Amino acid sequence: MPYVTVKMLEGRTDEQKRALCEKVTEAVAETVNAPKEKVVVFIEEMPKSHYAVAGKRLSDQ
Amino acid sequence: MPYVTVKMLEGRTDEQKRALCEKVTEAVAETVNAPKEKVVVFIEEMPKSHYAVAGKRLSDQ
Amino acid sequence: MPYVTVKMLEGRTDEQKRALCEKVTEAVAETVNAPKEKVVVFIEEMPKSHYAVAGKRLSDQ
Amino acid sequence: MPYVTVKMLEGRTDEQKRALCEKVTEAVAETVNAPKEKVVVFIEEMPKSHYAVAGKRLSDQ
Amino acid sequence: MPYVTVKMLEGRTDEQKRALCEKVTEAVAETVNAPKEKVVVFIEEMPKSHYAVAGKRLSDQ
Amino acid sequence: MPYVTVKMLEGRTDEQKRALCEKVTEAVAETVNAPKEKVVVFIEEMPKSHYAVAGKRLSDQ
Repeated sequence: MPYVTVKMLEGRTDEQKRALCEKVTEAVAETVNAPKEKVVVFIEEMPKSHYAVAGKRLSDQ
Repeated sequence: MPYVTVKMLEGRTDEQKRALCEKVTEAVAETVNAPKEKVVVFIEEMPKSHYAVAGKRLSDQ
Repeated sequence: MPYVTVKMLEGRTDEQKRALCEKVTEAVAETVNAPKEKVVVFIEEMPKSHYAVAGKRLSDQ
Repeated sequence: MPYVTVKMLEGRTDEQKRALCEKVTEAVAETVNAPKEKVVVFIEEMPKSHYAVAGKRLSDQ
Repeated sequence: MPYVTVKMLEGRTDEQKRALCEKVTEAVAETVNAPKEKVVVFIEEMPKSHYAVAGKRLSDQ
Repeated sequence: MPYVTVKMLEGRTDEQKRALCEKVTEAVAETVNAPKEKVVVFIEEMPKSHYAVAGKRLSDQ
């Protein structure tokens, strides 16, 4: 606890995801006073065809 | 805002997903008085082996 | 199936939520060819203090 | 109703997932007094590179 | 791991929720071969006005 | 995009939540190369009676 889910478009590199988990965990631990060991991060990726803003998918733009 | 997630079995065509995002966005914008530009839609697909009703997966029926 | 979750700021009227569920269900049923009886809608509300864009919560603006 | 989502690392066998859905459905139905026919289970899998504890992904350990 | 979310209508007693967490944890641990200590359960409740089937909210029936 | 959900026990102060949104947004923007303006953060709180580890709710410990 806390449990953090980051939902984003697919395509980030493995190194970016590694850094994301590390930095987000630090940001959460320091701001809500949680032990770093208890912070959990989930990454969820989506393709451009599964994400729409204003009714238009990114794959259709 | 609002953020809409549609979870469904995989297998819909790209054209069906395109229409889904468009029509759901219109339905949300008109009923809760949100600007269409602010409506976000996420599609999440699942295989039949990851979905169960009454304890039985669709892939086992 | 499908399962639709609409996440938005609290404050909509009961009538708006009723219309939202009705219209979104129709939009989903007609575009992905699902029987209307199978469409499920969940509404999730959040306060302005639990929603941030660009690092700034709506309650801080 | 209820709707149960089980999020776990990928790699379980099809037989394990089948048993998971069956047993979780029974556990839910008997404890919250819901008809078994109404219980829905979703399985969500994630790779080790999308799951971090204490800022470190399982794929980096 | 695994992380289990149970979404249901509000109104269950505290004792039902306690039993739910206990029994679901056992069902998950035994079927996917996870240590019981690693299983996490989240309960999410919704009012009848935030849940619709076939376009009709439970609060409108 | 990205969309970040932080799920945690209720009880944090308003100032902690404000700092959480700010710092998590910075961490995400810098690591996955997203414009800060596009990062969205949702906070979800749960009571101790809706969260269990190893089958035991925090409210029962």
